[in-house]
Order: sequence, then C-alpha cells, then structure tokens
Amino acid sequence: MEKNILLTVEYDGTDFFGWQRQPDVRTVQGEIEKVLSVICARKIEINGVSRTDAGVHALDQKATFSADFAIPVEKIAEVANNLLGGGKKPARQPSDVRIISAEEVPADFHARFSSVGKTYRYLINNSPEPDIFMRNRCYHVQQNLDVDAMIEAAAFVTGEHDFASFQAAGGNERETTVRTVYDLSIYGSAGDYITMEITGDGFLYNMVRIIAGTLVDAGLGKIPAASLKDILEAKDRTKAGHTAPARGLYLAKVYYDREEMRG
Amino acid sequence: MEKNILLTVEYDGTDFFGWQRQPDVRTVQGEIEKVLSVICARKIEINGVSRTDAGVHALDQKATFSADFAIPVEKIAEVANNLLGGGKKPARQPSDVRIISAEEVPADFHARFSSVGKTYRYLINNSPEPDIFMRNRCYHVQQNLDVDAMIEAAAFVTGEHDFASFQAAGGNERETTVRTVYDLSIYGSAGDYITMEITGDGFLYNMVRIIAGTLVDAGLGKIPAASLKDILEAKDRTKAGHTAPARGLYLAKVYYDREEMRG
Repeated sequence: MEKNILLTVEYDGTDFFGWQRQPDVRTVQGEIEKVLSVICARKIEINGVSRTDAGVHALDQKATFSADFAIPVEKIAEVANNLLGGGKKPARQPSDVRIISAEEVPADFHARFSSVGKTYRYLINNSPEPDIFMRNRCYHVQQNLDVDAMIEAAAFVTGEHDFASFQAAGGNERETTVRTVYDLSIYGSAGDYITMEITGDGFLYNMVRIIAGTLVDAGLGKIPAASLKDILEAKDRTKAGHTAPARGLYLAKVYYDREEMRG
Repeated sequence: MEKNILLTVEYDGTDFFGWQRQPDVRTVQGEIEKVLSVICARKIEINGVSRTDAGVHALDQKATFSADFAIPVEKIAEVANNLLGGGKKPARQPSDVRIISAEEVPADFHARFSSVGKTYRYLINNSPEPDIFMRNRCYHVQQNLDVDAMIEAAAFVTGEHDFASFQAAGGNERETTVRTVYDLSIYGSAGDYITMEITGDGFLYNMVRIIAGTLVDAGLGKIPAASLKDILEAKDRTKAGHTAPARGLYLAKVYYDREEMRG
C-alpha cells in the first residue's frame, strides 16, 4: 500500500540551481527525485514547502510524496543519502544535500499546504575583510553596521502588513500581498557576524532578502530606521532597500503547529 | 628599482587544482600570477613556500617575487584582491583566494629557502552524521574516536625521526627522509570536531595526511597507539595507516624565526 512520506532535508545551495526541478541543470528537487525514483523503481515527484532560489541554503526544508517501498520507512534516509553521495564511502566527494529524516504521515498531509509558517535566517559578515571560507554562506558588509538602528527598523516589520514594497517582480502574482511576521530578531554585533531571523505565516518572492537588504541600508545610515513605516505604506518595491544576496539566506524551520511557531 | 615582495595568502582549496601553476587548470599560483602580471604590466612568477595539493587549504601561505611597481607596496594586496574577485563589488562572486598582506623584504629573502618550519592543521569531524556545510573543509569520521589513544600515538611522532613510512610515492625524492616534528597536538573530543596541529622543520610528500590517517586508525582501535614506534622504525609506507583526505588539511603558519616556531 502507498505510504505518504514527509522528508526533512538540508542543503548547501551554492552548487544548485535552486530547489525546483528544471531540465538540464542540477537542482535539489531534481537530485532527490532521481534517487527516490531509483529506490521506488518508478518515477517519483516530491512537493517541497519552499522553492528556494539558486544559492539559498536550507537547514529544514520539507517535502512530501506518496509511494510503495520495498524498504522500511526508517531506512529511506540512509539509503537515499548513500545514493546522493557522501555517507560511508570516503572515496566519494561528500554530498551537499542530505535527507535528515523520512517519516510516514497521514495521507492528507502536504508539506506546503499543511504548513502554518516558516523561519528564515539571514547571515551577515560585518567585517573589513571577507571570510573566504564563508564566502558562499553569508553577505559580507565591510562598513560598520549600526545594529541598534537595524533593530529599530526591524520593529516596524513585525506584525500583519501589506508587504508589496518587499516583493520582487518575477514571483507568483498572488491575490494578496498581506502577510504576518510573527517575529523579526537581530543577533550579533558590529564587526562580527550578525544574524537576522524572521518568522512568518508566508513570504512573498524575495521578501526576506529585500527586508535584509533594507535593514542593512538602515544599519549603514543610508535610510533612517523610522522610514520602514513609510516604505511599508508605499506598497512600492522601489521605496525599499536593495535585495541582499541569496548566499546569506537559510530556510531554518518549517512549522506545522501554530503553538510551536509562536512559542 | 625592483623590490622583493613577500605575500601572505589564504585560500579555500576546494575549487583549485592545488597551488602549483599548471596549463589549462585553475591553480592558486596561476591565479595570483595572472593578477600580479596585470598590476606589474609584465609576466610575474612567484615562489610559494608550500605546493599544496588540490583540495588543501591555506591560512598563511607565503610567496615571494621581485618586480617594479607603479603603486605603493601597501596597496598591492587591495588592488590584487579586487582583481581576484570579491572585494567591494557585491555583484561579483566572492573570491576563494585572498592576499592578506604584501610587504617589502630584503633582496635575498625567499619564501621557501628562508623559512625554518611550518604548522599544518588537520580537521576531523567526528560525528555520526556529516556537516554538509563543512563537507570540503574536514574529514568526516563516523565512528567514535578514542582521542586518548590518538594523543598517545602522537607522542611517538614528535622529535627527529626518519619519516620514510609517512611519505607517499610521487613526491620529490630527496636525499634524506629525516625530519623534526617540534610539536604534534590533538585538540577536541569524540563526537565533535577534533583538530591535529603539527609543527616541523619540513614535511615529506603527504606526510601530514598519512600521520592524520594513522592517528585516526589508532583512534578507531585498528592499530595500537604504541605501534607508531614500529611504523617509524620500519621506514616502509605500507606499515603506516591510510592517507587522510586533502579537504581536512590546512597550511596554518609559516615560520621565518626559530624562536617563534618553538615558542
């Protein structure tokens, strides 16, 4: 009998053309589907919760699919990871994608439609010189950032707003651009790594990267922190700051339980 | 007038075919020479202290060259780094190699012949699951390592020895395989990151990686710690353990002063 399976997946997005399957290029969905199709001996398609862009990382991507298995569900991750590369064969190159877990879920559970929210993390390296070993995993900002100004600006973003000013062209045109940001926190200090963590019920195309870029602009003194209020009210992308690069962005957590998300 | 310049360079070795210039492939020496040749408006060749293999990283590679400059010496690093990529242009991909400093040194100073020793670092991730973000920067060992056994084994390596058992074929055949290891330290604990740091007056081809692999074998209980004594005495590569992968190895420090090295 077919089982509905929820995968938890992590990846370093550097060498992927994003999550979504595309012909002729290496994508996370494409690589995982290839491996699952081998395991299930038929073509498998998975539904991911977030179609991360090229260069964006994930610590907790979720995806569901239904299939028959010749192996126990608790073995799926191990078998898939060995096929994805890395694992126990030291001669192979270590893999940049890993299935953390596979678990059976009720037939009506869907990675995306069942989710109630997500947390994204955005990592900034605020130092005069770049860290070459972290070059694909953070946004290097040379000039000293005013973290207090960033925190002040972030306060305006929290809550239910029309985020039209923070939506890039090229995304899905949805009915509404209203979203709720439950939490937006800034950790770290100037001259060091600074982390932005944002939790919300949904995010428009490039919304997190535009918020991160706008907060950096506030931290650099290019815009006043209080202008975030006006930017939101303008509902105009040109009023917000720059789009921070993909390499600093991590899909950090997906929620299926409102209590957990708000806790 | 020509100036003799000492470069201090760091790089992530993942995407390089090693240090040494080779036709048609991307090497660290090749990339730096290309950029310096632009700056000096003539063909520049540099002499590095260590010809690191493909995948090996460096925090403190040193190289010398002599040339005339139209720019002040203290500007060389900044100008070269902008040409190497990264730097101040956010639209560019960040560079995986960076010149930390360039300084004028006496005419008879040579990065390699003037050096009196080096410290290499070897990084092991000892955990059941790999860290995909560190996949190119450490050696993932799944089974629990006995760090005390590794420390016990390391004690036999310190001192002046004939290291013929720890030399891979394919290196330069030198007159002598006697080297002095001033210090070999192991930091960290089982189930976590474990670092080996080795300081010596010189290293045979793959010597650090074979020592690291042999200490891992001791940590796994595959060989007794005390067998390191016999392995050294055998002067036979087949008696030592496996060669640990290049990706865990870092050239950490180059010394031009014996006091500093032994301190």
